[in-house]
Amino acid sequence: MNGRGKSETRHAGMAPNSVRARRLGLDTQYEAIVVMHKECDVCRSEGFSAHTRVLLCNGKRQVIATLYQATGDLISHDEAALSESAWRRLSLNEGDTITVTHPAPLDSLSHVRSRIYGHDLGEPAFNAIVRDVVDGKYSDIYLSSFLTACAARPLDHKEVLALTHAMVETGERLRWPAGIIVDKHCVGGLPGNRTTPLIVAIVASLGLTMPKTSSRAITSPAGTADAMETMAPVDLDTAAIRQVVEREGGCVVWGGAIKLSPADDILIRVERALDLDSEGQLIASVLSKKIAAGSTHVVIDLPVGPTAKVRSAETAKALSQDIVEVAETFGLKVKTLATDGLQPVGRGIGPALEARDVLSVLRCEPDAPQDLRQRATALAGALLELAGAAPPDGGETLATAALDNGRAWTKFQRICEAQGGMRVPPTSSQQRPLLAERSGDVLAIDNRRIARLAKLAGAPDDKAAGVDLHVSVGDEVTLGQPLCTVHTESPGELAYAFDYASANHDIIAIREP
Amino acid sequence: MNGRGKSETRHAGMAPNSVRARRLGLDTQYEAIVVMHKECDVCRSEGFSAHTRVLLCNGKRQVIATLYQATGDLISHDEAALSESAWRRLSLNEGDTITVTHPAPLDSLSHVRSRIYGHDLGEPAFNAIVRDVVDGKYSDIYLSSFLTACAARPLDHKEVLALTHAMVETGERLRWPAGIIVDKHCVGGLPGNRTTPLIVAIVASLGLTMPKTSSRAITSPAGTADAMETMAPVDLDTAAIRQVVEREGGCVVWGGAIKLSPADDILIRVERALDLDSEGQLIASVLSKKIAAGSTHVVIDLPVGPTAKVRSAETAKALSQDIVEVAETFGLKVKTLATDGLQPVGRGIGPALEARDVLSVLRCEPDAPQDLRQRATALAGALLELAGAAPPDGGETLATAALDNGRAWTKFQRICEAQGGMRVPPTSSQQRPLLAERSGDVLAIDNRRIARLAKLAGAPDDKAAGVDLHVSVGDEVTLGQPLCTVHTESPGELAYAFDYASANHDIIAIREP
Repeated sequence: MNGRGKSETRHAGMAPNSVRARRLGLDTQYEAIVVMHKECDVCRSEGFSAHTRVLLCNGKRQVIATLYQATGDLISHDEAALSESAWRRLSLNEGDTITVTHPAPLDSLSHVRSRIYGHDLGEPAFNAIVRDVVDGKYSDIYLSSFLTACAARPLDHKEVLALTHAMVETGERLRWPAGIIVDKHCVGGLPGNRTTPLIVAIVASLGLTMPKTSSRAITSPAGTADAMETMAPVDLDTAAIRQVVEREGGCVVWGGAIKLSPADDILIRVERALDLDSEGQLIASVLSKKIAAGSTHVVIDLPVGPTAKVRSAETAKALSQDIVEVAETFGLKVKTLATDGLQPVGRGIGPALEARDVLSVLRCEPDAPQDLRQRATALAGALLELAGAAPPDGGETLATAALDNGRAWTKFQRICEAQGGMRVPPTSSQQRPLLAERSGDVLAIDNRRIARLAKLAGAPDDKAAGVDLHVSVGDEVTLGQPLCTVHTESPGELAYAFDYASANHDIIAIREP
Repeated sequence: MNGRGKSETRHAGMAPNSVRARRLGLDTQYEAIVVMHKECDVCRSEGFSAHTRVLLCNGKRQVIATLYQATGDLISHDEAALSESAWRRLSLNEGDTITVTHPAPLDSLSHVRSRIYGHDLGEPAFNAIVRDVVDGKYSDIYLSSFLTACAARPLDHKEVLALTHAMVETGERLRWPAGIIVDKHCVGGLPGNRTTPLIVAIVASLGLTMPKTSSRAITSPAGTADAMETMAPVDLDTAAIRQVVEREGGCVVWGGAIKLSPADDILIRVERALDLDSEGQLIASVLSKKIAAGSTHVVIDLPVGPTAKVRSAETAKALSQDIVEVAETFGLKVKTLATDGLQPVGRGIGPALEARDVLSVLRCEPDAPQDLRQRATALAGALLELAGAAPPDGGETLATAALDNGRAWTKFQRICEAQGGMRVPPTSSQQRPLLAERSGDVLAIDNRRIARLAKLAGAPDDKAAGVDLHVSVGDEVTLGQPLCTVHTESPGELAYAFDYASANHDIIAIREP
C-alpha cells in the first residue's frame, strides 16, 4: 500500500476543505495552478473535476486557480500542490494549511456576454470586469473572450472612457509636486522605433519633468522597458522612481513594477498571444497609464504605413481624435504626431540592438542612424512646445541642440546611474546574415514580418536576440549582399528563424532593375 | 547533489531535442501539458519559457502542449513529464523518447484576426482553422477568441456553409443503406426538454430509421447523451451503432465517441465555459453532426420564451430560415417547430431526474408529465409527416397511439438492451427542498437561473444531481410549500447551490394575490 494513501487523509482539528499546501516548484508564469489527488476528500465532497476553477484561501489572501488532478502518488490525499504564482499570491510557507472551495459565480461574465451580443457596457460593467481581472479571477478563456469582444465591435467613446477609468481606479497612482509633467507614447507597429530614451534625455536636460513608465513588448520584439533594461535597471518601485525624478527630472522605468493599471499588464499577455490590439483597448491602455502616472502633457507618436499598426492617414486622424477627446475628459493635454511608418526605424530590432542605436545617437557617433535621431528631435520638439518650454515651431531646434552639445548624453548617463547603474547592452552568441537572393533595389520592408523574424530569433525574452538591418527602402543591393543579420542565443532559435525567413523571401522585397 | 541532476542529462545516441517521456499521472481533461526542467538542455537551447506552446513528437504522432517548467527536483534534466491527455495522444509507453521542438507558426490565426477586424472568412480559411482545432493546435486563448469573434459579428450564410462543411470534412461520416434516415434536434435553452428518447422510441416503433447521435450538455445541466447514459450505455463505436440500428431501427448514443464533427466537441468545451452560443456556430454544430450522421429528414425544436435560448418569434423565424437554407445546400430536408419555451419541461432538471420523467411517459404512468408527453408526440408527428410515414396532419395521432399501446415503451427497452443493457437511473445522496417564501401564484420560472442552480448542484457531471420542480407557472402555492428539491452528491455542492438560491429569490417568482 502507498504510504501517502488514505490513512493520512485527515488531520485532527483541520477545518473543512483544508489541505496542506505544498510547493510544487512549477513555473507557470501568471497562471495559478493547483494539483490535488483525484480521490482526496475535498475533490470528492466538492465534486471537483480536472480543469475546474477553484478558490484557494490562506487567511484573507485568496487566489482562483485551475485545478489539475493527480491519479498516482505524485500528490498525497491531504495535500494541495501549488504553482509558484499561486504560492506567491498566497504568501505561503511550507506546511501551511489552505482551504479549497468553489469560487462564487463570476457575475461580471454576464457583462462580457452582453457585449458579445451587441450591447454597450457602462461604467459599472467595466468596473466589475476590470476588478475581477485584477483579482486574478479571469481564466485565459475569459480574458481572450473579453479582448476579442472589445476588438470585434469597437468600443465607443463612452465605453473607452469607462474602461480607462476602471483601469486607473484598480491600480496605484503617482502624484508629483511640479505643475507640468510631460510624457510621450508611441502606438507601436514600427520595429526599432526606440525614441523614448532619447526624448527623456533631451527634455529632462532642458528642465522638463518626464517620469517615463514604459511597457514591455506586447506584440513587438521589444518594448521600451525591454530595451532600456539592457542599459539600466527598470524595475523600480514608486519611492525609487520619485528619487530618480527628483534628482534628474526624468527616468525610463517599467510601469508594470509599480502596478499602474495592473489590469493592462494582465490583458497585455493575452493580447500578445492573440497578436491583437483594438483601438479602444489601446486608448484605455495608453491613457490609463498616463493618468495613473500623473502626466499633464503628452505627445503621442502614430507611425503610419502599409505594414505599421496604423495603416492609413484617415485611420491615424480618427484614432488621434479619439485619443485627444478621451484625454481631455481626464484633464490631459495630448498632441499626436502622424509619422512615417513605411519601414523600421534605426537598424536594430530587439532590446539590446535597439539600445545600441540609442547610444550611438546620444553619443553623436558619425554612423548613428539619422532616421532615429530625426524622429526623436521632432517628438521632443513637439513636447517642448506643448509644455510651453519652447516657442511655437522652436522645439525641434532646441531638441537638436541638446543632442549636439552633449547635454542629452550627460543627462542620460546620470538617469541610468540614478536608476541603479549604467549597463553595457549584451551581444548575442549566434549570428547569421540573411543574403540577397538577387540584385536590385529594396522595394519594401515588411514591418510585421521582420518583427516576427526578430521574435522567432528570441526577442524580447533574449535581450541580445533580434535582427540587425543593413539596408533601407530604396537602397541598391547586389546578389549575396547581407540584407540583415539574425542574432540569437541558441542554435534552435537560429534554425527556427531561418526556417521562417526562407518561407518568407519577400520580408525584404527586392525589385530587379 | 541531486541524483537526477545534470550529470544524467545526455544519453549516448539520442537525437537532438530528445527527452525521456514520463507519465505524470495528471488529469487535465483535454488540455495537453508537459513539464520539463527549467534548466534542461532542450529548454535552454530552444529558448523555451513557461507557458510556451511546444510540439511533442513520438514518431509520426504529435501533439502541441503547454509547457510548464519545474525548478526543483520534480523532474530531472533528461525527462519530459506528460499529462494523461498528451500521453494518450502520443500512444506512449514508459521510457519512450520523444522530441520537443517549436511548433510551426499557426497561420490559421491570421484568419481569426481577420474576422475580428471585420472581414468575412471563405472556405479555405474555415478549413484551415477547423483543421488546426481538430489537430489540437489551438490553445484555450485561441479557441475562445475564434468563438467570440463568430458570436460578436454573426457569421453570414456563406460563412455558415463553409464552417459546416469544414466541420463535416474533418470528422468521420456514417453511411446507411436505407433511403430515409430521420433525426431531430432541439436548440437548447429549455431545461428538462428531454423529448429525444421518446421520439426515437415512437418513430422507430413505427418503422422509421433514426440513428440518433446526441451531445452532452453545452451550457445546460444535461444533454440527451447525459440523460440517456443513466438508462443505457451511450459510448458506442460506429460498428456497434450500426448493429443497434440494423436490429432496432433506432438508437440514442453519444456522438462524440464516434468523432462525427470532432471540431464541435472541442469548441463546445470552451462554449460551455463562456456560456456562449452564436447562431452560426449553432447551425454549423447541429447540421454538421446531422450531415456526418447521414440524415436525410430532420425536425428541429425551437423553444421560444423570454428566458429560453430563442427569445422571440421573430428570432425563431429568422433562425429557422437560416437553418433550412443551409440544410438545403447539403441536400437535407429540415422542418423547424417553434414551441413554447416559457418554462422548464417535465419536472426533473439533471441527467437522472430527466431520465425518470422519460421513463414515466413511456410507461404511461398516471402522474407522467403531460407537457413532456405532448411535446414528444408533436415532434414525432412532424417527423413522421416529413418522412412520409404519416399523412399530413396525421402524424401526432399516430405518435400518441404508439405511446398508448405500449409499442414505444417496448421499442425503447429493446434499444437500451441493444446498446449494452438497460440501467436504472441513479438517485442522489443529498436532497433539500426550496420552500416558498410567501403565498401566491407562480408568475414565472427563470429557465437560465434554474439551469444554473442545477449545474451548481453538480449536473451534468454528477448524474443524479439537479433540480426537481414541484410547481409550474400559474400554480397557486402557500408559504413554506416546497417549490422544488435540489439533489446533489455532496454537502459542498448542496451548500453552494443554496447560497445561489438565497441570492436569487425570484428564480421561481411568486406574485402575491
